[in-house]
Amino acid sequence: MLKRYLPILTWLPHYHKRLLGADLLAGLIVTVMVIPQSLAYALLAGLPAVVGLYASILPQLLYTLFGTSKALAVGPVAIIALMTGAALSSVATPGSDAYLQAALVLSLLSGVILVVMGALKMGFFSNFLSHPVISGFLTASGILIAASQLGSLLGISSSGFTLIERLMTLPPNLSAVNPYTLAIGSGTLLFLVALRRFGKPGLCALGLPSAVADLIAKAGPVFAVAATTLATWHWQLAEVGVEVVGTIPSGLPALSFPWGDTTLWRALLIPALLISLVGFVESVSMGQMLAAKRRQRISPNQELIGLGAANLAAGVTSGMPVTGGLSRTVINYDAGAQTPAAGAFAALGIALVTMSFTGWLYYLPIATLAATITVSILTLVDIPTLRQTWRYSRSDFAAMAVTILLTLVEGIETGIIGGVALSVALFLYRTSRPHSALVGRVPDTEHFRNIERHDVETASRAALLRIDESLYFANARYLEDTVYNLVASRPELEHVVLICSAVNLIDASALESLDAINARLKDSDVKLHLAEVKGPVMDHLKRSDFLESLTGRVFLSTYAAWREFS
Amino acid sequence: MLKRYLPILTWLPHYHKRLLGADLLAGLIVTVMVIPQSLAYALLAGLPAVVGLYASILPQLLYTLFGTSKALAVGPVAIIALMTGAALSSVATPGSDAYLQAALVLSLLSGVILVVMGALKMGFFSNFLSHPVISGFLTASGILIAASQLGSLLGISSSGFTLIERLMTLPPNLSAVNPYTLAIGSGTLLFLVALRRFGKPGLCALGLPSAVADLIAKAGPVFAVAATTLATWHWQLAEVGVEVVGTIPSGLPALSFPWGDTTLWRALLIPALLISLVGFVESVSMGQMLAAKRRQRISPNQELIGLGAANLAAGVTSGMPVTGGLSRTVINYDAGAQTPAAGAFAALGIALVTMSFTGWLYYLPIATLAATITVSILTLVDIPTLRQTWRYSRSDFAAMAVTILLTLVEGIETGIIGGVALSVALFLYRTSRPHSALVGRVPDTEHFRNIERHDVETASRAALLRIDESLYFANARYLEDTVYNLVASRPELEHVVLICSAVNLIDASALESLDAINARLKDSDVKLHLAEVKGPVMDHLKRSDFLESLTGRVFLSTYAAWREFS
Repeated sequence: MLKRYLPILTWLPHYHKRLLGADLLAGLIVTVMVIPQSLAYALLAGLPAVVGLYASILPQLLYTLFGTSKALAVGPVAIIALMTGAALSSVATPGSDAYLQAALVLSLLSGVILVVMGALKMGFFSNFLSHPVISGFLTASGILIAASQLGSLLGISSSGFTLIERLMTLPPNLSAVNPYTLAIGSGTLLFLVALRRFGKPGLCALGLPSAVADLIAKAGPVFAVAATTLATWHWQLAEVGVEVVGTIPSGLPALSFPWGDTTLWRALLIPALLISLVGFVESVSMGQMLAAKRRQRISPNQELIGLGAANLAAGVTSGMPVTGGLSRTVINYDAGAQTPAAGAFAALGIALVTMSFTGWLYYLPIATLAATITVSILTLVDIPTLRQTWRYSRSDFAAMAVTILLTLVEGIETGIIGGVALSVALFLYRTSRPHSALVGRVPDTEHFRNIERHDVETASRAALLRIDESLYFANARYLEDTVYNLVASRPELEHVVLICSAVNLIDASALESLDAINARLKDSDVKLHLAEVKGPVMDHLKRSDFLESLTGRVFLSTYAAWREFS
Repeated sequence: MLKRYLPILTWLPHYHKRLLGADLLAGLIVTVMVIPQSLAYALLAGLPAVVGLYASILPQLLYTLFGTSKALAVGPVAIIALMTGAALSSVATPGSDAYLQAALVLSLLSGVILVVMGALKMGFFSNFLSHPVISGFLTASGILIAASQLGSLLGISSSGFTLIERLMTLPPNLSAVNPYTLAIGSGTLLFLVALRRFGKPGLCALGLPSAVADLIAKAGPVFAVAATTLATWHWQLAEVGVEVVGTIPSGLPALSFPWGDTTLWRALLIPALLISLVGFVESVSMGQMLAAKRRQRISPNQELIGLGAANLAAGVTSGMPVTGGLSRTVINYDAGAQTPAAGAFAALGIALVTMSFTGWLYYLPIATLAATITVSILTLVDIPTLRQTWRYSRSDFAAMAVTILLTLVEGIETGIIGGVALSVALFLYRTSRPHSALVGRVPDTEHFRNIERHDVETASRAALLRIDESLYFANARYLEDTVYNLVASRPELEHVVLICSAVNLIDASALESLDAINARLKDSDVKLHLAEVKGPVMDHLKRSDFLESLTGRVFLSTYAAWREFS
């Protein structure tokens, strides 16, 4: 029981030296690698860079206590940072104290939502974010984030949270482009793209082992940060207009309890809910993928509690909303992390940097961070999936396209909500006109197939109608129409058998329709029968009066009905 | 073609004398019977009584041209009047010119919505109003309407459109109760209830034929109107505070085109949509019921056009939103109407009354009309259905209860929208955790049944898993969990066969999950197979790469898979 709520107890007692070595190395590598992205994502959310570091310490430690994934690394991630920025700028001015405060309230709120969902075992809730909606949302967010970094890459200001807002603020400032910033930004961008594309094969060709080559290729952002920081310091580029990170207060964040007021909580509730859901989906799908590789399992409901605890920790230590991040987790996994202790070591490493070495980041150019974000985020833009979805299903594609368009044009919240609403509506529409087939007997067997597709035996006075869908409110009336049309078209009919092998549910509306069908067929001297009703559906029907008023019988199999009427 | 859009052409050419006699009689009876309720429903909507008459003339004539039901009588009905009142009072003050104008815009808007839905064949849209939601909505509306009439019955004023608003406005005015009004109201109420309960059996016992007794019992409101009007005139009760209908302008309504402004149209859009849907559902279900009794069919999409035309007519002739009314249709049907001509005759009768006899209604007490409404509306309060639904399905009951509560507490729109949203959410929740079963072979047959319920043969190295639901985004992850848990619990497994006999749809999210399952099982050296995939589902799968990457095979039947692995 205790182990279920404190998964650390499942592995810490068996911890030993060999694991320690692997975890310490992974922790060290992660510390170095995630510092640039942590700073960058805080800036993306419109927050001071140091907030990204704060949000990588206590949240990760709490996830180590409560999380079930062995390799997940928790901290600020791009999508959540973008959503955080959009949410905060609707309630406060970027740069103001109120904005910082709102970030903490948002983290707390998100933490509370996640913990409550976990306690109520509501992990299934995230299933309503269908694959096309998530994929479309990520693509649109990738484009949005890339657009948001254009200004920083050019050394001019841009603002806004929809694509059009972003792009419209650029042209008036184009004359102010800073050549040094542009050089740093575009240079870093080219270096990172080149390293990503040619780095690993190139280094392997030079004789390096594959794992080392991979790690070096992934460390691109670290080299870029080191090189551009040194260059900016050496040539004093800050004095010619290159924007740098500047003074980062050193020392650990103080504990604070950002209560805020009810107006603020209310304004941030929907954004917090969406941030929680999106973060949870991103985190849990990655956690499941990695767990499967090592034949481990993670518990989605406990993950909610782990991520919730991490966000609560972010809220009280001057952080920002966090979740399991794609790139930091992959780094952690590839660096050989064996247990969640690796994450804890990385958190301690970042704490050490925050306490002692923030001065080293003074001359880090913002443009370098912008290039880092842009390169990592453009992998989210997933054109092949768009194409595959179009080929596979028009209605899934519609949900995806609407999500992308709404996200780009109307913003993140509208995009997700609109996409989910459309997915649901399309699903209901698809199931509202269920496929049904008149079936006949395949000669000399007990199999029954569609009379229009197969050469089967039929009986003139009985119709065997197979309904290929659960019966519920959206298709109840359609069922009535189908049966009435059938009876109207065949005056010689005496029996209608509904074959329910694909009916997994009959709700109250459908029951009402069955009652109506039964009564109207009775008026026409046609008997209604059921066949192959599943156990759970039958249990339900027995709780109503329908079976007593049914004019016909309930057959166990279609064949039994056939024998009766042929 | 023309006949499809002008259903009058299907019956008018064959019209003959015998039909004329029956229709004329029905038209006369309907004229007399529906005048009191037409006046009453206009008052219920906060409109002048005469609007109810106007809305019973041209709308009914247009429905005769475009409608497909032989017996439906179109005019103001209680629920729609209540919804109209709620919608209008949010945009104008009752009694003002703007309020009257808004009523016309609402009718036009509703007419446009209905015609467009009909043209686009969107009749299925009304299916989303599930039976529990409609039933709950009617029950709550019955209570609301009865509460709204309490003031008129007591002779004091009350206002508001939620139950609490209504009831809160009564007590402060209780001291102003008018004894004469109270006497007329409660007397009429008792008379109508007694006639409804004992009228028909009593009259039959006196030797009257059943049909005549029935008609007399139904004519209760006409007698009450006549008696209380005469009494009020004779004793000049208006002078002692009994509120009467007063002067009704005589003559037909002038044609007008109430364009209004875009703000008004926008404010009334959602109410108009709900009024259209609720009116359509009420009308079409009654039309279908009566058509079935005579082995006729109605066309729901053409009904949308008929009702839309009726509402457009109401909008240009100083009316109010209309639909096929329960009580007026039943009167029409029972009075022997054979064709829609009966409705046209009733419309002409009401036009005649409006032109020449409105003076007779001057002394008609409002309290009489209130009693008429109350008695007819309380039949909507349907406690048995509430009980049956509770017994049949808790989640359907939840949708019903929430609709009732929201309608009473928050108002009509919130009630319907909340009920529909909850129905949809509950349906998605139910299908998000589909029933699945490991099956085995019933000895010596080709049948496969749940291994937990039946004594069946199994194979140790292959698992046959039957999924009892379409696979889509809400249950895709659940499917993954099910399969992974299965594989984790049986290390000896080499083959997993998914039996898809109940799978009617695989959407893009589920396809993604199947891909993931296939890949992860491959990592564990377990092959994934499918069996009994339906034609339409298979067609879809062929458009993706899934079948190429599938590690196993697609079996036509479970038995074929069994033969391979047993």
